[in-house]
Amino acid sequence: MISNSQSFDVGPILAAIDAGGTTFKCALIREGEGVIANLRVPTATPSETLEACSRFFHEQAAKGLTASAMGIASFGPIDVDVNSPTYGTILDGPKLGWAKTNLKSYFEAALSIPVAVDTDVNGALLAEMMWGAAQGTQVAAYMTIGTGIGAGLFANGSLIGKPSHPEFGHIRLKHHDADKDFMGVCSIHGDCLEGLASATALTKRFGDPIKLSQDHIGWEIEAFYLAQACNVLALTLRPEKIILGGGLMLAPHLLGSVRTQYANLINGYLDQSPEDIDKLIVTPGLGDDAGLYGGAYLAKSLIAN
Amino acid sequence: MISNSQSFDVGPILAAIDAGGTTFKCALIREGEGVIANLRVPTATPSETLEACSRFFHEQAAKGLTASAMGIASFGPIDVDVNSPTYGTILDGPKLGWAKTNLKSYFEAALSIPVAVDTDVNGALLAEMMWGAAQGTQVAAYMTIGTGIGAGLFANGSLIGKPSHPEFGHIRLKHHDADKDFMGVCSIHGDCLEGLASATALTKRFGDPIKLSQDHIGWEIEAFYLAQACNVLALTLRPEKIILGGGLMLAPHLLGSVRTQYANLINGYLDQSPEDIDKLIVTPGLGDDAGLYGGAYLAKSLIAN
Repeated sequence: MISNSQSFDVGPILAAIDAGGTTFKCALIREGEGVIANLRVPTATPSETLEACSRFFHEQAAKGLTASAMGIASFGPIDVDVNSPTYGTILDGPKLGWAKTNLKSYFEAALSIPVAVDTDVNGALLAEMMWGAAQGTQVAAYMTIGTGIGAGLFANGSLIGKPSHPEFGHIRLKHHDADKDFMGVCSIHGDCLEGLASATALTKRFGDPIKLSQDHIGWEIEAFYLAQACNVLALTLRPEKIILGGGLMLAPHLLGSVRTQYANLINGYLDQSPEDIDKLIVTPGLGDDAGLYGGAYLAKSLIAN
Repeated sequence: MISNSQSFDVGPILAAIDAGGTTFKCALIREGEGVIANLRVPTATPSETLEACSRFFHEQAAKGLTASAMGIASFGPIDVDVNSPTYGTILDGPKLGWAKTNLKSYFEAALSIPVAVDTDVNGALLAEMMWGAAQGTQVAAYMTIGTGIGAGLFANGSLIGKPSHPEFGHIRLKHHDADKDFMGVCSIHGDCLEGLASATALTKRFGDPIKLSQDHIGWEIEAFYLAQACNVLALTLRPEKIILGGGLMLAPHLLGSVRTQYANLINGYLDQSPEDIDKLIVTPGLGDDAGLYGGAYLAKSLIAN
């Protein structure tokens, strides 16, 4: 995709990891060529998962594909403060067993290359602004809707929330009328955005989303919460793009429903036409690889110039 | 207040207006001295209100107190894009009769001085960051809770939402259990933050807030919504200060209740101690004059070197 879209000049090989709660995606990406090798590793225990990733990069190096730097776009909460002694460490959060795992120091020791770490959504956002759906924008947001929900936000020239990162998945929302009594699935907040609208939450109420018919009330409820989240982003940051990624957005009818319910909620207040809303709320230009290219972006930032 | 807090050197006279939905506060402010003349004008029709303000500044000029520039911190929605042909114009919104009023061109013509305009909350935020409760911070928010609700946000070196401005008062919220059926008072959104938690909304359900006893459920409901708003700001921007201003915050018990309910909502997720929360959520250092000093800040920016 990158090679087709002209953006990468031929350059060094970059190691990228999209560290998700379900899968770690590993890739080598060369500027001008895109992904030249990749592997998906299930997210099991830290030692199992990280060792499998490390093995992949060593095997590639043995074939002559040696990365100059690594970037990791990771699930959170995670210490992304480059000045912190624990930079790169996953913090206490919903993902059990991973707290205190330092991704940066692990891979720096294992691969002897510099490693940069940011949140999955910050990485994906930067990649989308560089190469994807938010090219040319100054203010943009990337929200992932999968096992969990998170967002990366960019305004005034850099990421919002530094030296930490946003925790947008944990805002509270108005309940849908047909979902008033659902307590939510977030282990910390119950009915926050993630607790109401993650894939986990949808599955808990209605079963496997893949099996839900398009006209199931579950989708309307889901879209209502995602539309509210877009509403909050629009009313707070006034972004040019809100990119919705993550596994749940693969449901082809969901995007349109989010846009419709967004329009209902905003009720003309920001003077947006339906076409404006179609341009505002979009899916990733880099598709399912936004996080992976986010890793590449972070790696590239380590060896810029 | 300013003169006591050392911040102003003696300098030019600045004309400031805090243009509120209920009152226009006018003042002349001289650096080093603070407010040297002021007048409160009820917000009636645009012509009545603006003429009364203009008359005040002319009278002061006749006494030798001539301003070099004017800054207006205004209610919204308002065009605050300095590059727009309608910069300074109030837009269609809840305040009837004021749409299309151009505050900037009115006062430039009436007083023959340059005029800068921003939202009331952006002005108050800048003033609080310069001279008030958010001095020394890099990321801060100012929310006003009065007739309406709005917020100014600052991160990454400048205001958020430019060339427009945030419309944070119109985000949706989880209803309080004892307030599930209230439809809200926002003419556009019903039960948005402003529709649920403005002074107008509180009065609609429970009567004059001044007459409500401290233990009235209305205050708990109010604090629940304001705490949610703080929660959204904290999870989105990760600010160092959230300053709560506006008439309703004059209720002395409300701030503590907002902090308590904020702590309940966040449930330890951002690793904040009660002391951290006391430092995060505060009232304005400039008190009721934050908006007025915001006007002075905007005026000052027009004549700065």
